[in-house]
Amino acid sequence: MEVGFLGLGIMGKAMAANLLRHGFRVTVWNRTLSKCDELAALGATVGETPAKVVAKCNYTIAMLSDPSAALSVVFDKDGVLEQIGEGKGYVDMSTVDAATSCKISEAVKQKAGAFVEAPVSGSKKPAEDGQLVILAAGDKALYDDMVPAFDVLGKKSFFLGEIGNGAKMKLVVNMIMGSTMNAFSEGLCLADKSGLSPQTLLDVLDLGAVANPMFKMKGPSMLQGSYNPAFPLKHQQKDMRLALSLGDENAVAMPVAAAANEAFKKARSLGLGDLDFSAVHEVLKGAGGSGQA
Amino acid sequence: MEVGFLGLGIMGKAMAANLLRHGFRVTVWNRTLSKCDELAALGATVGETPAKVVAKCNYTIAMLSDPSAALSVVFDKDGVLEQIGEGKGYVDMSTVDAATSCKISEAVKQKAGAFVEAPVSGSKKPAEDGQLVILAAGDKALYDDMVPAFDVLGKKSFFLGEIGNGAKMKLVVNMIMGSTMNAFSEGLCLADKSGLSPQTLLDVLDLGAVANPMFKMKGPSMLQGSYNPAFPLKHQQKDMRLALSLGDENAVAMPVAAAANEAFKKARSLGLGDLDFSAVHEVLKGAGGSGQA
Amino acid sequence: MEVGFLGLGIMGKAMAANLLRHGFRVTVWNRTLSKCDELAALGATVGETPAKVVAKCNYTIAMLSDPSAALSVVFDKDGVLEQIGEGKGYVDMSTVDAATSCKISEAVKQKAGAFVEAPVSGSKKPAEDGQLVILAAGDKALYDDMVPAFDVLGKKSFFLGEIGNGAKMKLVVNMIMGSTMNAFSEGLCLADKSGLSPQTLLDVLDLGAVANPMFKMKGPSMLQGSYNPAFPLKHQQKDMRLALSLGDENAVAMPVAAAANEAFKKARSLGLGDLDFSAVHEVLKGAGGSGQA
Amino acid sequence: MEVGFLGLGIMGKAMAANLLRHGFRVTVWNRTLSKCDELAALGATVGETPAKVVAKCNYTIAMLSDPSAALSVVFDKDGVLEQIGEGKGYVDMSTVDAATSCKISEAVKQKAGAFVEAPVSGSKKPAEDGQLVILAAGDKALYDDMVPAFDVLGKKSFFLGEIGNGAKMKLVVNMIMGSTMNAFSEGLCLADKSGLSPQTLLDVLDLGAVANPMFKMKGPSMLQGSYNPAFPLKHQQKDMRLALSLGDENAVAMPVAAAANEAFKKARSLGLGDLDFSAVHEVLKGAGGSGQA
Repeated sequence: MEVGFLGLGIMGKAMAANLLRHGFRVTVWNRTLSKCDELAALGATVGETPAKVVAKCNYTIAMLSDPSAALSVVFDKDGVLEQIGEGKGYVDMSTVDAATSCKISEAVKQKAGAFVEAPVSGSKKPAEDGQLVILAAGDKALYDDMVPAFDVLGKKSFFLGEIGNGAKMKLVVNMIMGSTMNAFSEGLCLADKSGLSPQTLLDVLDLGAVANPMFKMKGPSMLQGSYNPAFPLKHQQKDMRLALSLGDENAVAMPVAAAANEAFKKARSLGLGDLDFSAVHEVLKGAGGSGQA
Repeated sequence: MEVGFLGLGIMGKAMAANLLRHGFRVTVWNRTLSKCDELAALGATVGETPAKVVAKCNYTIAMLSDPSAALSVVFDKDGVLEQIGEGKGYVDMSTVDAATSCKISEAVKQKAGAFVEAPVSGSKKPAEDGQLVILAAGDKALYDDMVPAFDVLGKKSFFLGEIGNGAKMKLVVNMIMGSTMNAFSEGLCLADKSGLSPQTLLDVLDLGAVANPMFKMKGPSMLQGSYNPAFPLKHQQKDMRLALSLGDENAVAMPVAAAANEAFKKARSLGLGDLDFSAVHEVLKGAGGSGQA
Repeated sequence: MEVGFLGLGIMGKAMAANLLRHGFRVTVWNRTLSKCDELAALGATVGETPAKVVAKCNYTIAMLSDPSAALSVVFDKDGVLEQIGEGKGYVDMSTVDAATSCKISEAVKQKAGAFVEAPVSGSKKPAEDGQLVILAAGDKALYDDMVPAFDVLGKKSFFLGEIGNGAKMKLVVNMIMGSTMNAFSEGLCLADKSGLSPQTLLDVLDLGAVANPMFKMKGPSMLQGSYNPAFPLKHQQKDMRLALSLGDENAVAMPVAAAANEAFKKARSLGLGDLDFSAVHEVLKGAGGSGQA
Repeated sequence: MEVGFLGLGIMGKAMAANLLRHGFRVTVWNRTLSKCDELAALGATVGETPAKVVAKCNYTIAMLSDPSAALSVVFDKDGVLEQIGEGKGYVDMSTVDAATSCKISEAVKQKAGAFVEAPVSGSKKPAEDGQLVILAAGDKALYDDMVPAFDVLGKKSFFLGEIGNGAKMKLVVNMIMGSTMNAFSEGLCLADKSGLSPQTLLDVLDLGAVANPMFKMKGPSMLQGSYNPAFPLKHQQKDMRLALSLGDENAVAMPVAAAANEAFKKARSLGLGDLDFSAVHEVLKGAGGSGQA
């Protein structure tokens, strides 16, 4: 199977390399073309522009850093739109908001091309290991065609229906994660102030019904007041806000998420927005902003 | 090692049998003595009263149904107190409140005996499999002596310091569990009302950072509105309340737990108190009490 | 003083009549021109279009039903913009969002005219009695010129600084009102379920530190489950949401408002959005949607 | 009418003086007897012990500082119980918990005496002015007999039914007050951070639907960060907690009160417990404990 691949950042490079390793023929493009060399050494062809990649390949995947890069690659001169059309599919795996995704989708469809949004959960390591979770939505036939590639890139892919559902699913997951983080932090504080060892609480939790990777990974550093930003608090709070807005549109009351969101806002007001989202622990501890990244 | 064992309910029978299987000499007692037969068949000696068991064994474990049974076995005629004393240890593994535990502890210590409270997390299956988690507190020397038995009964035991800490640790863990359940339920509702498949959400969650046994076990039945009471909602709400009281004593603000507690109270007001604590989902769904056990 | 007056709905008619009664010369316009007759009988001149009113008067007040009407009167053919300019002032007293207000402000200023937004608090009765509270913002010189008119229309006017501040002040006030309504409703429920007379609670509250017109006015009908919509719940909830968004922008944590907002959302989900905002009482009572308008 | 009066603290002295001024014959007692001199100068008779006061008067009012003083005056040697009996009434106007009130009530009734609990709302100034609000419960016949005295002491008295209801009514009122204080503080913070003048917000609020004495009295000092303790925050938080417990007993969900309670707890954790309850404003402002009494 031949695929185009636009965007060779940390994630994209690992993903394109995985495809090559599994026998895909891959034509890569990156804004800074020199970044293509490494992939060329692994057997990739280099395309000069997004348009040329799309002209050459029936399926093109993009993995770009943000909504503006995602839009630029499609709509700019020499962009995807110039060559997309009947029989060609475009798959954007970048994390973008629903509005950006819809805009790209409509433009591609107007040219008779097929479009799938496919944001992923997982970062560098899972990308390298082909262990991403892929939240796809849009054109079902294109999704079906892409399954062999998704099987290489991720441990699991989901088809979620209409465009926008990928982004929504991420919001719901992140909202649950954010509320759970608050519950966790409150428990650590309660243990500490009640004369119990928070470290022992971590051990007990890890053997129980709510044992989960996040508690295991973040707990020890939270107890040290160390919040190296894997997922910045301001982004987590933004996702809480967007999830609450989605709930507002659909008249879903979510009092626990609302309380958690206020704690994240409080953390932002204390200047913790750029630390990891686990830094909400500083708010609950009452230390007031003394955390370190 | 020789141990006494008081109380052969579902939990106690499985635990005593485990001890026998691992080569402990066990003298058992139960209020209804006929319940001892099964253990006798596995090699246990039968004691006629708690006092006689304590007289015979240097270490006696109790696993009783509630605080009143726990008190009765100690303070009634022919009870533990009549024979406890210097060189003898008593280990209560029942789930009781801190006050009950303290009362027993003081009485045992006044007789120069040693006492450990050791409530467990885990129910029938983990008891049978020797996979309980044991939250012990009280006399450290007695705890050390009991480690071989705890190793047989549980996958892990913790020594938590002074009497009362076992009960407190359970409250903290249950509070985190209760808040997390609310976060989970809110997410399921949001997915559903936003046009996403809640079933797919379960699958996505199970691959992510907050994947945990509770989501896996309770999620599918919650989606069916089925709440077979593994842990009754009214008990979960009581533990939330007690955890919030503990936070009140120690001036720990816990806004997410407080919001979760109100949802559980709402569930109680809708008559869902005897269903599983996951029935709080009915409140958040807005169905208002139509869940079934 | 000569003023133009655009919009003769319930509010506008009462306000224009007040101005006439206090000796202002008033030129009125209304989309349905026949509505001008009543004012003409009181001495008003009738203008054929907004543009003609502005051409005639140095100061023109508008009181329109919603943002779309407010925009239409300015930007449509024969609208305010055609005649506004140097030396002329436009005062919009309609309740509109900040974006609408900004759009009008910029257009007026581009034509060298002066603009003041001046939303009011108070409805029909206070409008008739000249007892409105006027929340003005924008051009300070124009505000100063308008004080004689504002003194007739309201019991008090405030100048709040830059455009948008009038709308923001209304949001803050409505947020406090919405949270206080929830506190009130929770208290009524608690009294009722605890065996106290909610009617007596109303009497006790009315003698105490938080006695206020809202408790006095809404309490008795809430106890009867009657929610005649003076201020529809869906609008109150929208204002709570916008106030929380404003807090989000400025990193202000507002946990009580957030909890109150979720209760209003719950009320919406039960179909109570068109009733008075006091219908949130139905959510807290647990009756689930049986209230009546 | 002849009445006994036990307890001549700030409140009691003012109340007894009011009774004398209105023609009641009053026999006073105070633990430190010299405090009786001032009242004797106004015409009071002095009793040597509570028992002697009760022996002399058919109706005896008590106004004591706390539950322990209230119990002591009744149960100690030379206490009320020694002389209470058929045809004699005892009215405790101290602020005590329901349990204390019940204990006194039962003891008095066992001696065939009549008992009314009658906690008041209002402090020194209203006591002097006879403007207290009296929340009475217990023996209805005794209440009826006391109405002439209550009319002198308060602007209004309520008979609330069975013993305990006076205390409960105070809790409900204080809960509403505590939540409303939080709503108010959140609004002041939102105004401030959004570029609006909090002082102007106070003025606008004072003209609107939720204008109330508390906003008027506390607002200006809150803006200055000054929290002279009229009602200490730790007592307000205790009342929130007790009101939430009452809600727990009766399965009433009160999410706004719960959120407000957590803010008060946070304030306590920052060391603000002895300041006025309006010091919760420091938590919401995010200043973290810099308030002054």
